[in-house]
Amino acid sequence: MAYNDDKINMVHGAGGEVMQGMISDIILNNVSKTSVNGGIGLEALDDSATIPIDDEHVIVTTIDSHTVQPLFFPGGDIGRISAAGTLNDISVMGVKPLSLNNAMVISEGFERSDLEKIVKSMDETCQEVGAAIITGDTKVIDSDKLDGMIIATAGIGVGKKENIVSDAGLKVGNKVIITGSVGDHGMAIMSKREGFGYETELKSDVAPVWGMVEAAQKVGTITAMKDPTRGGIANALNEMANKANVGMRLDEERIPIKPEVEAVSDMLGIDPFEVANEGKIVMGVEAENAEDVLQAIQKTKYGKDAQIIGEVTDKKHVIMETIIGGERLIEPPIADPVPRVC
Amino acid sequence: MAYNDDKINMVHGAGGEVMQGMISDIILNNVSKTSVNGGIGLEALDDSATIPIDDEHVIVTTIDSHTVQPLFFPGGDIGRISAAGTLNDISVMGVKPLSLNNAMVISEGFERSDLEKIVKSMDETCQEVGAAIITGDTKVIDSDKLDGMIIATAGIGVGKKENIVSDAGLKVGNKVIITGSVGDHGMAIMSKREGFGYETELKSDVAPVWGMVEAAQKVGTITAMKDPTRGGIANALNEMANKANVGMRLDEERIPIKPEVEAVSDMLGIDPFEVANEGKIVMGVEAENAEDVLQAIQKTKYGKDAQIIGEVTDKKHVIMETIIGGERLIEPPIADPVPRVC
Ligand SMILES: Nc1ncnc2c1ncn2[C@@H]1O[C@H](COP(=O)(O)OP(=O)(O)OP(=O)(O)O)[C@@H](O)[C@H]1O
Ligand SMILES: Nc1ncnc2c1ncn2[C@@H]1O[C@H](COP(=O)(O)OP(=O)(O)OP(=O)(O)O)[C@@H](O)[C@H]1O
Ligand SMILES: [Mg+2]
Ligand SMILES: [Mg+2]
Ligand SMILES: [Mg+2]
Ligand SMILES: [Mg+2]
Ligand SMILES: [Mg+2]
Ligand SMILES: [Mg+2]
Repeated sequence: MAYNDDKINMVHGAGGEVMQGMISDIILNNVSKTSVNGGIGLEALDDSATIPIDDEHVIVTTIDSHTVQPLFFPGGDIGRISAAGTLNDISVMGVKPLSLNNAMVISEGFERSDLEKIVKSMDETCQEVGAAIITGDTKVIDSDKLDGMIIATAGIGVGKKENIVSDAGLKVGNKVIITGSVGDHGMAIMSKREGFGYETELKSDVAPVWGMVEAAQKVGTITAMKDPTRGGIANALNEMANKANVGMRLDEERIPIKPEVEAVSDMLGIDPFEVANEGKIVMGVEAENAEDVLQAIQKTKYGKDAQIIGEVTDKKHVIMETIIGGERLIEPPIADPVPRVC
Repeated sequence: MAYNDDKINMVHGAGGEVMQGMISDIILNNVSKTSVNGGIGLEALDDSATIPIDDEHVIVTTIDSHTVQPLFFPGGDIGRISAAGTLNDISVMGVKPLSLNNAMVISEGFERSDLEKIVKSMDETCQEVGAAIITGDTKVIDSDKLDGMIIATAGIGVGKKENIVSDAGLKVGNKVIITGSVGDHGMAIMSKREGFGYETELKSDVAPVWGMVEAAQKVGTITAMKDPTRGGIANALNEMANKANVGMRLDEERIPIKPEVEAVSDMLGIDPFEVANEGKIVMGVEAENAEDVLQAIQKTKYGKDAQIIGEVTDKKHVIMETIIGGERLIEPPIADPVPRVC
């Protein structure tokens, strides 16, 4: 099979089903100890892992490498995405991120002024949630062995066990909320690369989501959460449904999507549901307080366009009622169609 | 000045004085919040950072990217170094490492079987200290944009505040211990690259050091610790002396160095004191129990060749009495002479 041979290919790093298969085969099968103190470990394949420290509290931790190209794009840069990406994987566990670890691999000849911009951008993003940058690492590689730079960020949050939200907790009857328009980040990257000139309107949504989680948790019960990054909402929705052994029924009309995203998506034949978002959350919430949660999110800086897009069913598939009245099966993508999107 | 221009060069990532200068200029100057809850933060430039969680306990966390070339070298591979490197930066804070976060950036076309070997090697290294691999990330990049792979590992330990050992705590009169022979890793990498054929004897020392820390803490008081990685013991000894505003007087005769390391070092004109070790600790210990600590370390798997190599003075310099009876000033290296050593 094309995706199952002896060599790693781009699809293995593209956040869809093939990547998940490889992680199970090569990583999970070869790691002896995958969790600490009964916390959420590697098997859960959740956004972060947890380490219980006493009867009440857990540490939440995660890591992501960032390889985005170009380094500076409309709406953000590799610094902002490196900070937000990791802060968000902690936030979607229901816990406030406290700190980042920052490991930079830089290609020789990199402009010092660009590096400074990138660090400032990380810092500004951290400031939005009050997180600190507490440790890091710097390596430099010959310019013919790496283009640009790679930033790996890990992060830590500490929270109460009772506030932890996994990505596997959906219940039949829950409402599904998306906190804003879909496909912005992936399409902004593509548009910039192709030089479409949509750059003035089309911006990445890269942003820290903690404020939305905090607002939501104050007024309702979140049963499951995920940040729909690589593989987009198609991946996140299917993963959440799959893990909880449920399905979803969505309403296309209510899924927010910007006209300029739609335009670029049509032009390139790329499904906006399958590309990365970097400032959004997909969440399941209990039906009785879904409206309260929605309104709380809509009052936050990044949540104005939040919508209830459907509900959780016992049907095992993610089905969308289309605007023209039909039904579309939303399948988990094989891979995100945009290389080096984050 | 050659090292102070507008572009990043290899020296900026080579673990010596120039790198430290850049970290202060570009990183520290642009980060607003550098610590959490009064813990050890970025300013300390220690091996790890700490986050106090209650009156008694702290989280210890660190990160390193690993860019070593070749990926497989005598005595180890990038998997072992990625695990040991991060486990060791936690261990030298005096705390047992619990878990790793594993972020892999892989170049397209990478052999699946090599990836599997590398993951197994990480796992075996973790098993030596009982640490788990609890979360990770995988990205794939075109083969002309990255050669081989880069692994960033972050890690977590949880320990008692009273057990935390910084790298800044040396006191005049302390004894200085090195837990084994110096320069093995850097010289093994060089020898392999140059094809010197010393490979059968010359092996990297890459190994987890936790067992030695644990043994030492049981019998004595460690005042300061560091793993002498990039920049070698010359860098670690000077950094420790500098931070504590003290000096050292060392005895060359007692500094363990393998004949094959000496040979390659002579051949290449590279100082074995300035190259990376990946399974060693430099520690300051209180004089009255230095012998006990030494013996405890010598009984551990990786500590057989440990030695008391000198003592801490109030003279502000690291001075070595040479075998032929002279004195040599051990200066902090500008940069580690071996590129992509770890
Ligand atoms: N190399 C790896 N080693 C260990 N675990 C991994 C590795 N790669 C991925 N994982 C695990 O697989 C799961 C999916 O990873 P993925 O990177 O898709 O999650 P994410 O960070 O939420 O998404 P994104 O990287 O797109 O932001 C996570 O639980 C992650 O911990
Ligand atoms: N890009 C960065 N961002 C934030 N802090 C950094 C960065 N690079 C280095 N640091 C900090 O500088 C100090 C020195 O880093 P260094 O990588 O030399 O330590 P180390 O990991 O103990 O050594 P090695 O990387 O050789 O194993 C550490 O405290 C580290 O946290
Ligand atoms: Mg995620
Ligand atoms: Mg992520
Ligand atoms: Mg480091
Ligand atoms: Mg260190
Ligand atoms: Mg290190
Ligand atoms: Mg990830």
